[in-house]
Amino acid sequence: MTTVVNGVNVQALLEAREALKSAPEAAQFTWRANSKWQKGVHSTTTIQGFFGLGQEQNHKTEAVFDADHPEVFAAEDNGITPIEYLLVGLASCLTAGVASVAQNRGIQLRSVEATVEGAHDIRGILGVDSDVRNGFNDVKVTFTIDADASQQDIEALVAQSQKRSAVFDALTNPTNVTVEVA
Amino acid sequence: MTTVVNGVNVQALLEAREALKSAPEAAQFTWRANSKWQKGVHSTTTIQGFFGLGQEQNHKTEAVFDADHPEVFAAEDNGITPIEYLLVGLASCLTAGVASVAQNRGIQLRSVEATVEGAHDIRGILGVDSDVRNGFNDVKVTFTIDADASQQDIEALVAQSQKRSAVFDALTNPTNVTVEVA
Repeated sequence: MTTVVNGVNVQALLEAREALKSAPEAAQFTWRANSKWQKGVHSTTTIQGFFGLGQEQNHKTEAVFDADHPEVFAAEDNGITPIEYLLVGLASCLTAGVASVAQNRGIQLRSVEATVEGAHDIRGILGVDSDVRNGFNDVKVTFTIDADASQQDIEALVAQSQKRSAVFDALTNPTNVTVEVA
Repeated sequence: MTTVVNGVNVQALLEAREALKSAPEAAQFTWRANSKWQKGVHSTTTIQGFFGLGQEQNHKTEAVFDADHPEVFAAEDNGITPIEYLLVGLASCLTAGVASVAQNRGIQLRSVEATVEGAHDIRGILGVDSDVRNGFNDVKVTFTIDADASQQDIEALVAQSQKRSAVFDALTNPTNVTVEVA
């Protein structure tokens, strides 16, 4: 078999899978974000620490994200809108999955691009019509993949990525979200 | 009534609400993201254009987001993980809502902070146990708000923000997501 180089350490992931079979408590992660209101609908959200493998962990660097509304919503557009962050998460999660599955199946990738479109009827959030939901009506992801593989094998890569995607699951199935005031 | 200055143009939003009552087609937005695989599970996602109010629109600047896995997943940590982007979206959406509702109710905000925690059993995505879901087990948001208002009024602000939040809806209710290969 030709060695494929997609840059994913699949061996380490397979070892982690084996190790976590007998240590489910190590698999319990907590991801965290801290958000500060700036002005208007502009906020900055910081991410650095998380919990996993039984202890506190840190990303190498602190990441800061601006969110705002665009000028057509009478705001200053100091960042993308909150709902667009969901598309960033979805695109990047499915792409990471494609790379991981390709590595595991010995498929050399040359390029992977994804375009994501989220249809959103803003009458919900504006309170125009209570029958219109607040979130996306639907989301469509289109992959363009150049790889040493048949179209059928490429479609199977994408299907497997979907099956194991954290963000795909989080968007297509309900999650309990609790909101409290300290 | 004292004039409150939270920086949200509520008048424009109320006018938009009125205008969209008779022009539902203008309320149909499409948000877009374009993602490119870099190496391993590292990707960069770009956001600039979107469709709304019947025509193509643009954010003032193009925004680029790196996503990767942390070093504990044998990756290079060139960015936050895809699932963490959902927390950025949730925190910023609820915070924008708090500011908008406060402005509408004449409540002066001094500071708003939100911490978001997403519990995630990674045995799902690693394929250790098919009974474990891929996404979050649950998400908890805690607001700390300093404002010219009673605790009860502050709690009501947060409750109303939740009720109109696009991202809160997208995470707590299912959305149809279609994934295709071009």
